[in-house]
Amino acid sequence: MAEAEVGDDVLGDDPTVKALEAAAAARVGKEAALLLPSGTMGNLIAVLAHCSERGAEVIVGDESHTYVYEAGGMSVLGGVAFNVVPTQPNGELSLERLTTAVRPDDMHCARTALVCIENTHNRCGGAVLSLSYMASLSEWAAERGLPIHLDGARVFNAAQALGMDVADVTAHVTSVQFCLSKGLGAPIGSVLAGPAALIARGRRLRKMLGGGMRQAGVIAAPGLLALQQGPQGLAADHAKARKLAAALASIPGVLIDAERVQSNIVVFALAPGPCSPVQLCARLKRRGVLAAPFRGGVRFVTHRDVSAAACEAAATAVAASLTEEGGLEGEAHQANGGAYGQGTTWPGARGGG
Amino acid sequence: MAEAEVGDDVLGDDPTVKALEAAAAARVGKEAALLLPSGTMGNLIAVLAHCSERGAEVIVGDESHTYVYEAGGMSVLGGVAFNVVPTQPNGELSLERLTTAVRPDDMHCARTALVCIENTHNRCGGAVLSLSYMASLSEWAAERGLPIHLDGARVFNAAQALGMDVADVTAHVTSVQFCLSKGLGAPIGSVLAGPAALIARGRRLRKMLGGGMRQAGVIAAPGLLALQQGPQGLAADHAKARKLAAALASIPGVLIDAERVQSNIVVFALAPGPCSPVQLCARLKRRGVLAAPFRGGVRFVTHRDVSAAACEAAATAVAASLTEEGGLEGEAHQANGGAYGQGTTWPGARGGG
Amino acid sequence: MAEAEVGDDVLGDDPTVKALEAAAAARVGKEAALLLPSGTMGNLIAVLAHCSERGAEVIVGDESHTYVYEAGGMSVLGGVAFNVVPTQPNGELSLERLTTAVRPDDMHCARTALVCIENTHNRCGGAVLSLSYMASLSEWAAERGLPIHLDGARVFNAAQALGMDVADVTAHVTSVQFCLSKGLGAPIGSVLAGPAALIARGRRLRKMLGGGMRQAGVIAAPGLLALQQGPQGLAADHAKARKLAAALASIPGVLIDAERVQSNIVVFALAPGPCSPVQLCARLKRRGVLAAPFRGGVRFVTHRDVSAAACEAAATAVAASLTEEGGLEGEAHQANGGAYGQGTTWPGARGGG
Amino acid sequence: MAEAEVGDDVLGDDPTVKALEAAAAARVGKEAALLLPSGTMGNLIAVLAHCSERGAEVIVGDESHTYVYEAGGMSVLGGVAFNVVPTQPNGELSLERLTTAVRPDDMHCARTALVCIENTHNRCGGAVLSLSYMASLSEWAAERGLPIHLDGARVFNAAQALGMDVADVTAHVTSVQFCLSKGLGAPIGSVLAGPAALIARGRRLRKMLGGGMRQAGVIAAPGLLALQQGPQGLAADHAKARKLAAALASIPGVLIDAERVQSNIVVFALAPGPCSPVQLCARLKRRGVLAAPFRGGVRFVTHRDVSAAACEAAATAVAASLTEEGGLEGEAHQANGGAYGQGTTWPGARGGG
Repeated sequence: MAEAEVGDDVLGDDPTVKALEAAAAARVGKEAALLLPSGTMGNLIAVLAHCSERGAEVIVGDESHTYVYEAGGMSVLGGVAFNVVPTQPNGELSLERLTTAVRPDDMHCARTALVCIENTHNRCGGAVLSLSYMASLSEWAAERGLPIHLDGARVFNAAQALGMDVADVTAHVTSVQFCLSKGLGAPIGSVLAGPAALIARGRRLRKMLGGGMRQAGVIAAPGLLALQQGPQGLAADHAKARKLAAALASIPGVLIDAERVQSNIVVFALAPGPCSPVQLCARLKRRGVLAAPFRGGVRFVTHRDVSAAACEAAATAVAASLTEEGGLEGEAHQANGGAYGQGTTWPGARGGG
Repeated sequence: MAEAEVGDDVLGDDPTVKALEAAAAARVGKEAALLLPSGTMGNLIAVLAHCSERGAEVIVGDESHTYVYEAGGMSVLGGVAFNVVPTQPNGELSLERLTTAVRPDDMHCARTALVCIENTHNRCGGAVLSLSYMASLSEWAAERGLPIHLDGARVFNAAQALGMDVADVTAHVTSVQFCLSKGLGAPIGSVLAGPAALIARGRRLRKMLGGGMRQAGVIAAPGLLALQQGPQGLAADHAKARKLAAALASIPGVLIDAERVQSNIVVFALAPGPCSPVQLCARLKRRGVLAAPFRGGVRFVTHRDVSAAACEAAATAVAASLTEEGGLEGEAHQANGGAYGQGTTWPGARGGG
Repeated sequence: MAEAEVGDDVLGDDPTVKALEAAAAARVGKEAALLLPSGTMGNLIAVLAHCSERGAEVIVGDESHTYVYEAGGMSVLGGVAFNVVPTQPNGELSLERLTTAVRPDDMHCARTALVCIENTHNRCGGAVLSLSYMASLSEWAAERGLPIHLDGARVFNAAQALGMDVADVTAHVTSVQFCLSKGLGAPIGSVLAGPAALIARGRRLRKMLGGGMRQAGVIAAPGLLALQQGPQGLAADHAKARKLAAALASIPGVLIDAERVQSNIVVFALAPGPCSPVQLCARLKRRGVLAAPFRGGVRFVTHRDVSAAACEAAATAVAASLTEEGGLEGEAHQANGGAYGQGTTWPGARGGG
Repeated sequence: MAEAEVGDDVLGDDPTVKALEAAAAARVGKEAALLLPSGTMGNLIAVLAHCSERGAEVIVGDESHTYVYEAGGMSVLGGVAFNVVPTQPNGELSLERLTTAVRPDDMHCARTALVCIENTHNRCGGAVLSLSYMASLSEWAAERGLPIHLDGARVFNAAQALGMDVADVTAHVTSVQFCLSKGLGAPIGSVLAGPAALIARGRRLRKMLGGGMRQAGVIAAPGLLALQQGPQGLAADHAKARKLAAALASIPGVLIDAERVQSNIVVFALAPGPCSPVQLCARLKRRGVLAAPFRGGVRFVTHRDVSAAACEAAATAVAASLTEEGGLEGEAHQANGGAYGQGTTWPGARGGG
């Protein structure tokens, strides 16, 4: 990383970045790719590049990262309106509901220009979209001349869970953003891949947004490593998640549906009782275990730096925390669990958690 | 109208406009008001004036005019993101769902800055929001420091249906847009009313949008008349609508819920059969009756220029059209009923109408 | 006007509007036209319709109405960046300076997409662009594939001053906005004319901006009259302006260049002395004469409702006001002459006027 | 760098980033600072955070990086209009011209909300703004309640050239952006510093733009080093630039004003002759010397990785290239020198270079 061969990437002169972009495009079966400082920028650029003409709207799921966690940037900065459809618990946007959502070609309406999906789906607890769903959606979109953008921050997890090559998953979408950080293990960086013309527009947008970095090779070097070696570790992450889920399931007061633990995310709710999700996370933190309040429940994420033993310890800590005497100073029963905690409630989570 | 005393309204010099704005503000119990060329501009300016700081989002119902029929202008031109909640069949946005929709104060999220409601509610068939709902919503919003904007294009119809003064309805919202055209009878013009500071911002926005008109007195003069005399005619419009609904209810193949005819809009669905809503409207047009395909059904609107006799004739024409031999040349079973016809289906309407 | 045949213009059903739009397009030699509530909206829609893809910039003169007096709407609402070049005293943008202004096709730069000019030129005192300049600019733009939009709020005055048909002037531009109000005499309304595809985009933008009006025929009817009969009165307006200028030139303390009085606008500066332009306008107002502080000087505009006798009276009032004893109560030597008074100084005007 | 202690910087948990931000704020004498992937994002966020209310415009110099080289992002993404004033050859915006540029508080005009300056000034050949100018501008702005943002990508060079502490320079502005890359030597990263409230708004904007990076410590670690040790090397860079300028001055056909070589940038023009700036740069590249066509001339930049010997070699290469026999294959006399080459011409540079 510190020894990466670098150049001025804004001018297209950084060889390490070029190598990463070529390798990334090839890996997900797209014509071209673009290195970015974050997944949020990847999704933002994708939507702006797909919707380059004024007056467009993008169809998003109501639980999607793009709609909930990206500060509305597509609308705020890009003037692209949201057309929001319900997200199914399994992360899908139903074709029936999508069909209703597409606006007619009428001056009263925004111009429906793009569909965004997410795989694996964060707020659906790491749910994996089935390949048959992806294929049907792809066909549905093609019939309407609509492109699909995949927020694939964790698409390598999806491919692992499906037991397929990632390119077989991304074959069903026009463009995909995936993170080199998160499960793949790089410290920084995401990639947007898609048709060459789209990526060319994206390259200009990256400059405009200030995401063009000078000697970006120092980011690209570990990114290339992550791309090549990162996917191999994901099976273990998923196994750890399943094990953690099983351990949690046996704890009284923990409500968890093992079916829904499909990748490296484990979400559980709490039976009504004296300890709220926010309190539980605070108690876990004191025990050295990081978890986040999540849709009225609690979320764990497994990754390469969390051992199987640590997962066991986490479950033990949950059990201990739930029976801990409450009322520690400063442990107010906070209503607010931040951006992850709020919003629509996790199925099974008690209200107001 | 042609004899209105005029001046340059952009410079605040048109006395007729000033008189209208003062009368309109007083009528709906607000500090100030602004004359505008259309209701769409009224809603656009309201949202932009409430959300004057970058990064805001507005909560809208998924069947609201602001979200469906205003071309996404709030997002496209104003960079205000939509936060979309389901519209109840009675036109309400449930407080429970609204509570979930408000974003936490977190940098991952847009800043929830406004709630928009609609009364009477167009896509809910002219549904009237109850005063108790308005009051609860007002309290809910006050607790959260959120302003409410009312798309009251037909708020005088709502007041008529509730048997109240319009100011008792608008007392529950921060700002209101209402149309001088539509039921009140002016040829052109809408009004935005609200707090003086908001209207001052709105006045600048009106100039920027190009809604500032020079000798606008020629619009204000009939507008003043409409404001003063228009509301008196609404009771008759509603009676005609009820009568039309009753007549339609007796026609075989017409599905209509009389409960839902609350103002001057009459929506009905068709039992499955050879004649689709789009076809029915085409046949009615040949008989000199104007109706619009609407959410998989058909919509009539009564107003001052439609007599009781015309309503009877309309029902007769519906009955005749439904039994007409199909297959007239050019009468394709069109799938597309335009912006009104498409979208989520009217309860009772058969799919694909 | 009150008897105009009307319809719903948003739905394209108003016959009077259709007739006006067809007549207007024909008059300026363009494929299609669009009726709008104001010239500001006409320019805004033109720029947004020409620059429909994100990332564009428009070249404007630093004294142009579009840049100075339209609240920055093109950038604020449309995200179109200004590329600003100096305006010559005769209203022209020099081709040399335009050539330098066009950005290279480079990701560091916005995409130069349009040139805006103004004829006659308001802040240049009603200056008329020569036909040879228009022709050279047209050629220059064609070589670069750049469209030209003409802010022709007063283009009929330009045609009159040039002694030509207005279509011979507008032949050199891609699109033109002109006002039915102002010199042509309608109470309200402007027209945008240009290629059919541009006007179709403009029609959608008009709806989005809220400039689509329901029974717009009441505006279109006097507009049609203004279009047909208005131009005939402009020669007289120009003659009155020249006469007024001659009368003003003979008043001690008035600095005026008769060469620059080319249409119906008369701007003069004041020799250093006890009476400032703002004071002069206040004194004139007390004498029943309307004038505006303008770029450190004073502006008169002649039109159909100002008689030749009124022009003489105005000059007399200026002479009398200049020698009036100052220091009337409330007649502070205001530095601020509003939007017209401020900005770059009129040649010959003393600083700080 | 590869061993930096990291955390999730979006959540404010990365200790190395926090340390860098604190050190950077202290270094330039501001309350708070924000690490960013690029200077372009720093300027974009600064302008958006200063102009958080819709309808604002920013005053920029016509040769400024913000206006010329940042793709119009402030307008395109942020809806902030440009108010453009001429840049003096020494990089200053004259107070007289600024005074004229500020818009009156009038609904016809955008709201002037910010002044941007640049020090050292790139397109003015690395010109250093004098401290007395900075002080006068600061006073001018304070009188008008206008904040100042400094594009200080190279402000450490300015401080070095002035022989002052950088905080004495930045004391005259509200906010400053400076690059850790460029002269200070980090591979990636820029900093925006200013009042705490502004930086808090900026932090949200950074997330929205996608400039929030997860384990950003890997960028912050070398950035901290650059901040601490980088400034010490700048004196040598400036000395090398002066030496290079002197060497170039003695070459026949090179037009250079040594007075204008004030920091680490050296710009020269070419006497009319067979070799254009674009050709010269191409010939230099074949000799292993990197230079850029620049405003009709040629630009060199000295930095830590360019030795004094390399500077001498560069001058020798220029001399040799100028006398080289022209007409090598593929060496067309290109008119286009890219974004740097185009635009207003460097004083002394022949046209069309």
